[in-house]
Amino acid sequence: MTNKPKRNDRHILVCNDDGIFAPGIRALAEVAAEFGKVSIIAPDTQQSAVGHAITVHYPLRVTDFEINDKLSGQAVSGTPADCVKLAHDQLLKQKPDIVLSGINHGSNAGINLLYSGTVSAATEGTILGYPSIAVSCTEFSESADLSGCQEAARRVLRYIIENGLPSGITLNVNAPAGPLKSLSWTRQARSRYVDEFEGRVDPSNRPYFWTTGTLEVLEEGDDLDLNVLKKGRGSVTPIQYDLTANDFFRKINGKIDLE
Amino acid sequence: MTNKPKRNDRHILVCNDDGIFAPGIRALAEVAAEFGKVSIIAPDTQQSAVGHAITVHYPLRVTDFEINDKLSGQAVSGTPADCVKLAHDQLLKQKPDIVLSGINHGSNAGINLLYSGTVSAATEGTILGYPSIAVSCTEFSESADLSGCQEAARRVLRYIIENGLPSGITLNVNAPAGPLKSLSWTRQARSRYVDEFEGRVDPSNRPYFWTTGTLEVLEEGDDLDLNVLKKGRGSVTPIQYDLTANDFFRKINGKIDLE
Repeated sequence: MTNKPKRNDRHILVCNDDGIFAPGIRALAEVAAEFGKVSIIAPDTQQSAVGHAITVHYPLRVTDFEINDKLSGQAVSGTPADCVKLAHDQLLKQKPDIVLSGINHGSNAGINLLYSGTVSAATEGTILGYPSIAVSCTEFSESADLSGCQEAARRVLRYIIENGLPSGITLNVNAPAGPLKSLSWTRQARSRYVDEFEGRVDPSNRPYFWTTGTLEVLEEGDDLDLNVLKKGRGSVTPIQYDLTANDFFRKINGKIDLE
Repeated sequence: MTNKPKRNDRHILVCNDDGIFAPGIRALAEVAAEFGKVSIIAPDTQQSAVGHAITVHYPLRVTDFEINDKLSGQAVSGTPADCVKLAHDQLLKQKPDIVLSGINHGSNAGINLLYSGTVSAATEGTILGYPSIAVSCTEFSESADLSGCQEAARRVLRYIIENGLPSGITLNVNAPAGPLKSLSWTRQARSRYVDEFEGRVDPSNRPYFWTTGTLEVLEEGDDLDLNVLKKGRGSVTPIQYDLTANDFFRKINGKIDLE
C-alpha cells in the first residue's frame, strides 16, 4: 500500500523536538506552507535526545501560541511522539496528509537516529498512517543557515507528493548548514560513540558526569548517511520501525530449542 | 562475528527502566547470579516509556545502594540507555560479558518495543558490543508472579552462553505472569494503539489529557510476539537497530532523482 497525499486542501502537520521556539521549526513550517495548510503542534520545551519516549505518568497540557502573523499553533507539555499522537487523536479537526518533523538543530544520521526525538515524531506519523519526513541540520547552532535544509525538505516533500510513500516507511533527511550541494538516497551508517562521558567534580566535591563522546563509523560505503554528509552533501535515508532481525529469525526459528 | 560470553569469571550487568527499587530487577539479578558475578546499575527513578532517550542537558549523578545482603549496585540519575553507557565507559572496572535489562513490569512486544526503556538498555548493550537481553512480564502489577519470566530469562541466558549471539542482535523476551508454559522464537507484530488519549478537566476547569489506548494487531501469524503471548506463552524476538528500510532503498536508490 502506498500513501499518496491528496492534492487539494492539503494539510501538513509540523512538529519537532527542539520545542516551538526553535528557529528550525519556523524554517520547516515556511517550506510546508508552500505546499498546503500548516498546523504546528510541538513540545513546549526542548526535548532533544528523548528518543521515542512517550508520557505515561503525567497528563499532557496544551497551550495555543503565536510566533508571528503567519505562524501559530499548539504547544504540548510532552515529547515529540506525544505531540503527533495527540494531534492525530484529539487536536486536529482535519487529519493531516503529511507529517513533518524538524528542522532539528543537530545531525540525526547514523546511530543518532536511535536517540532522536525529531525522527520519533516522524516515525509516529508513519505508525498512524501518514507519509512522514524528519529533517535535520548537521550543525547544532541555532543561528546556522538552514536554507539548504529547507531546499532538501522542499525536494523530498515534492517527491512524496508526486510518488507517495509505501506504508511503514519514514524518510530521514539530513543536510549541512548553508546552500544544498546535492541530495541522495542513503543507508543508516553502522556507528557508535566512544569516550562517552566526562567526569567532573562539583563545588561540594561530589562527582558528576556529562555526556560527550566521538562518533565512530564502523563500516565503509559511499551510500552511508554519515559519509555523504561528511562530503558536505544532503542525505535521505528511508527507515522503518519493524525491528525484527529477519535474517537471524529465519535462520534460527524452530531450529534451536528454547526448552 | 558472533559474541560468545566467556565461561570463567563471567560478569553480568543488570539494568532496567522501572528503577532500582522495582521487584523485577531483583528477580532478574537472582537469575543472573546463577550464571556469574552481577553488577546492578540502573535508574534511580521510574523511567517507563522513555524509549531510547539519553540525557544531554543535565549531568548524571551516581549513588551506591544496597537492596539486601546479596544485592547491591549503583543508581544513576538518568535513563536506562544512560546507565548502560555510563557503566561501560566509567563505572565498571571489569567490562561485562552480558547485559540484561528488566524484568519490566509490562509488555514490550509489538509496537511497545519502540517506546521501551527496558529494550533500549539492552540495545545499548548490543551497540557497545555485548550480547544483550531484555526481559518483560506482560502484567503491569509489581506483585505479579515473575517465576515464568525468570525461567524464560534463564533459558535465553543459557542459550546465548552456549551459542553466542551475532553482533548487532538483541534478544527481546516477553512472558506472562505465572509459570512458563513454553518459549518460542517470534517476530515483532505490526501493531498500533487506537483511541490513545482520554481528555479530562481539572478542578480549575482547565483541560488535560492522559495517555491510554487499545493495542491493535495489524497482521496475522503464529510467529508474532503479541499472538504467542495471547496464548499465554513466552516469546523471544531477535531485534536489530539498523533502521534502514533496505528493500525500499534497493528499489529506489539511484532511480529517482532528488534534484
